[in-house]
Amino acid sequence: MEKITHEALEGASVSQLQTLCEQIREEIFRTVSVRGGHLASNLGVVELTVALHRVFDFPRDKIIFDVGHQCYPHKLLSDRADAFSTLRSRGGISGFPKRAESEYDSYDTGHAGTALSAALGIAKARDLKGENFDVIALIGDGSFNNGLIYEALNSLRLMNTRVLIILNDNGMSISPTVGGTHEVLEELKCGNAPIEDVRLFERYGLEYMGVYAGNDLESLLPVLSEAKRKLQNGSVLLHVTTKKGQGHPFCEQAPDLTHGVSPGKKGREYSTALGEELVSLAKTDKRIVAVTAAMTDALGLRPFFEAFPDRAFDVGICEEHASVLSAALAAEGMRPYYAIYSTFLQRAFDEVIHDVCGQNLPVTFCIDRAGVSGSDGETHQGVFDLSYLAPIPNLTIAIPANISEFRAMLRMSTKMNAPLAIRYPREGEEGAFSPIEIGKFDILHSNMSDIIIYAAGERCLRLAEQIYRRAKEEGIALSVVNARFLKPLDTELLDARPERYVITIEDNALIGGLGDAIARHLRNRGKEIYSFGYGDAFIPHGDARGLFAEFGPNEEKILACVRDCHARG
Amino acid sequence: MEKITHEALEGASVSQLQTLCEQIREEIFRTVSVRGGHLASNLGVVELTVALHRVFDFPRDKIIFDVGHQCYPHKLLSDRADAFSTLRSRGGISGFPKRAESEYDSYDTGHAGTALSAALGIAKARDLKGENFDVIALIGDGSFNNGLIYEALNSLRLMNTRVLIILNDNGMSISPTVGGTHEVLEELKCGNAPIEDVRLFERYGLEYMGVYAGNDLESLLPVLSEAKRKLQNGSVLLHVTTKKGQGHPFCEQAPDLTHGVSPGKKGREYSTALGEELVSLAKTDKRIVAVTAAMTDALGLRPFFEAFPDRAFDVGICEEHASVLSAALAAEGMRPYYAIYSTFLQRAFDEVIHDVCGQNLPVTFCIDRAGVSGSDGETHQGVFDLSYLAPIPNLTIAIPANISEFRAMLRMSTKMNAPLAIRYPREGEEGAFSPIEIGKFDILHSNMSDIIIYAAGERCLRLAEQIYRRAKEEGIALSVVNARFLKPLDTELLDARPERYVITIEDNALIGGLGDAIARHLRNRGKEIYSFGYGDAFIPHGDARGLFAEFGPNEEKILACVRDCHARG
Repeated sequence: MEKITHEALEGASVSQLQTLCEQIREEIFRTVSVRGGHLASNLGVVELTVALHRVFDFPRDKIIFDVGHQCYPHKLLSDRADAFSTLRSRGGISGFPKRAESEYDSYDTGHAGTALSAALGIAKARDLKGENFDVIALIGDGSFNNGLIYEALNSLRLMNTRVLIILNDNGMSISPTVGGTHEVLEELKCGNAPIEDVRLFERYGLEYMGVYAGNDLESLLPVLSEAKRKLQNGSVLLHVTTKKGQGHPFCEQAPDLTHGVSPGKKGREYSTALGEELVSLAKTDKRIVAVTAAMTDALGLRPFFEAFPDRAFDVGICEEHASVLSAALAAEGMRPYYAIYSTFLQRAFDEVIHDVCGQNLPVTFCIDRAGVSGSDGETHQGVFDLSYLAPIPNLTIAIPANISEFRAMLRMSTKMNAPLAIRYPREGEEGAFSPIEIGKFDILHSNMSDIIIYAAGERCLRLAEQIYRRAKEEGIALSVVNARFLKPLDTELLDARPERYVITIEDNALIGGLGDAIARHLRNRGKEIYSFGYGDAFIPHGDARGLFAEFGPNEEKILACVRDCHARG
Repeated sequence: MEKITHEALEGASVSQLQTLCEQIREEIFRTVSVRGGHLASNLGVVELTVALHRVFDFPRDKIIFDVGHQCYPHKLLSDRADAFSTLRSRGGISGFPKRAESEYDSYDTGHAGTALSAALGIAKARDLKGENFDVIALIGDGSFNNGLIYEALNSLRLMNTRVLIILNDNGMSISPTVGGTHEVLEELKCGNAPIEDVRLFERYGLEYMGVYAGNDLESLLPVLSEAKRKLQNGSVLLHVTTKKGQGHPFCEQAPDLTHGVSPGKKGREYSTALGEELVSLAKTDKRIVAVTAAMTDALGLRPFFEAFPDRAFDVGICEEHASVLSAALAAEGMRPYYAIYSTFLQRAFDEVIHDVCGQNLPVTFCIDRAGVSGSDGETHQGVFDLSYLAPIPNLTIAIPANISEFRAMLRMSTKMNAPLAIRYPREGEEGAFSPIEIGKFDILHSNMSDIIIYAAGERCLRLAEQIYRRAKEEGIALSVVNARFLKPLDTELLDARPERYVITIEDNALIGGLGDAIARHLRNRGKEIYSFGYGDAFIPHGDARGLFAEFGPNEEKILACVRDCHARG
């Protein structure tokens, strides 16, 4: 196969460009098969990206990829074809746009809905500096549900600048796109009501062009040239339809299942337990409802949606709305379970405070992908949730030791009448656990010793057990506690334990996490407290297990700490 | 004057209801003159609220007030007329809807854009429980800029329920409403393009009714009855125009200045200094731009907007978009100053992490109303920002000791090339300060003593000075440090200070604040650390000074701590 180069674009005939598209598809498919990553979304935009690179002049012109999970063809066509096989691996090419990686990446993305705001900022800076280049925001229809897009649309006229929005309409976010905005787009595509809807976009200061076939190079090239011309006079919305997974039979048929692909065999997942337990609980407890922001499958809620379609709400990529909706359902007596990735809950931070905890309402946040989450990198690590949730009054924060304990916490939650956050990583194992009581830790090993380890969450408890075992082999006894509630803390147990040396282990940033909470309670008692977790830096992409060892609590360092404490007696 | 009662509504003629409206206006004006509060927004909805109480059956029917600063007539008409004179005072009636205060308040609000999501949740719970009542979301046109509203609109069809949205269109948020959505609403009002825009709302599953005169009882009553009838078949959007400040000549003329009213004489404000310094800096530094989410005046940016209209952006109530826009402006070389209240920055939390700090971009967040902010209550206190900002990598967090030091920090910020947050209360004084160096504290009193106080922010430093003075009178020497950077901490100074007893004072929640940061650094050194700030509870409304004394760091308790440390030597 020929090397993919940007130079191959210049002067190439349409049929040569089509060949280039096939090369790009093959390269993406081959790499994602090995490295994992976003498959269907990238396969869908190959022709569009090739056409953009032909018509526009990157990196002089700037393109912002909303969410960013469709940037692989762009990476292959800019300066990263040689390194592309390292995709998503530690030190390799990121699966998302990264300014630090290439000047072709104008703006880092990862969370949905930021591209138009970012394009407006870049375009306005261009105007203020008296420069002249084109700014493009490539946005999927799934992101068009997100409130940020409307906030940006609203300020389009105000900003008095020019951007090209390309609406990449494949009818999907990760799950099929849902909601009223989708209806508008569908009508546009059917040609049922073009005039009214086109006028809608004009109100916001956009010239509407569409609908065009986004997987057809021959028609795309002149359309993009036309959009580029129009862009000199004002902002343009170019509406193209693409097929998610285009060019790969299985992806085309199952674009939701091939949105993100993980290589290798998967272990057990907490999400599976979530679905099973919620379905089981909801059979007898009619108050239980489930809420998700476009992540039904990844969060394990599919069985619930099938069993209780009237009590299951996928509101699209709308994390804030999902949070307020949950609060209001709870205000009227329902028991909402809002499942969400740790990193995406950041989007609903204000609503967790203002709507859920401010009113002390029984919403249970099921926070998946907590701790280091892996190959998606900086924008997807879930290492801040303990820190940002800890200061919120009324909130109980639970951290299960294993999948079985997670199940027990879910059962416990139905008896609570207050907000609850349960945070857990993607993968884990079933295991032993003692009965759950809110705010009570679980003592796993209690020995005559001056050293005690408080660890929270499955990864950290596994590490604590390993340290326990290795220390024992060295003749060092210690105690190990499953610190399964960050809030309320088990102050009774903390007060009662006599150990002088306290070690905390957590799968979270050290600033504001479990270590700080325990240290706060144990202040001024002559204890020595050593905390292990993530330092004060963003954590890049790589294998989750490797990142945990490299950036998180480190086995050898903790063991060295244990030995040192033991030596001092 | 007759007492305002709900019973007065029943069987009353329109002219009797008009008299009731005048009574309500007088009561609101009288109370706000004494207690402060939201004046113009409440005066605007008097007729609308009277008509709603006549046509609907509260509290069986539920109404959610978006933002909530227009709920005074509702409070007077439900069960709180007698207590209304206690408005916004400690222990008195809240200026916002509060479920805990009355069963007539269905859902707590305070931040913009939540009402439709909340209405959908309440309506869906009603359906699931097989109950039957009406749910109304009263939303101002200013909130229609907020992304949350669009997220909720998008899920209107999905939720398959019925709500009445009343769009209270007064052309204002706090400042005049801006942006593309406003254009749509203006065209509807002019009757220029009703068909297309009406169809827009229909796409989302709403029957559109409008535009009606919202200050005219005679026309409102039949319109609301009609809306109530239509609501049996599906969701309705009722568009009414009201006059902000209606019935009061000065308010009508200056609705922006009378949106919120503070009683008594005001002191100096940090916001004034912000405007002055930015204007001064921007004259020579063409990179400087200012961004606000609909709070130009309250944040002191008016002079900047007048001096540099091309470099000043009020994007409407869109805190998230403002944050991404700032990041993108910075990515292209500008130096954005994004001024915002502490409590509203919670809305942009994800964007602070993902867009600004993740890309390490030089955006300066000017965080006003930090610490306890007063009479607006739980939803407006700024006591979490140190906690939620502390764990974010790349962010510098500064806390000025007085307005002069704030000015110096702003001047310093132009030399930084990284994200910066400066947090400060509303009021303060000019004062002395030593030259600013990033991450360096300022020693105010250094004495031979075993006790040192680290205090941050003007309120806490004033308190520390008071304690210093009183302790000195008692013959107790201590040292006092202005801990003006939460991040980076002045680890060099912390390492060098010999005092055994360390007292921290902050205008923030104790969980995750300055005390935790200093304690983390000083762990395991035989120090005793005593932290004073806010406990783990939401702080109600009241006078800011009184709330600080009641819920915050308490002078007598700190002094008792000082005496105790001194006694132990």
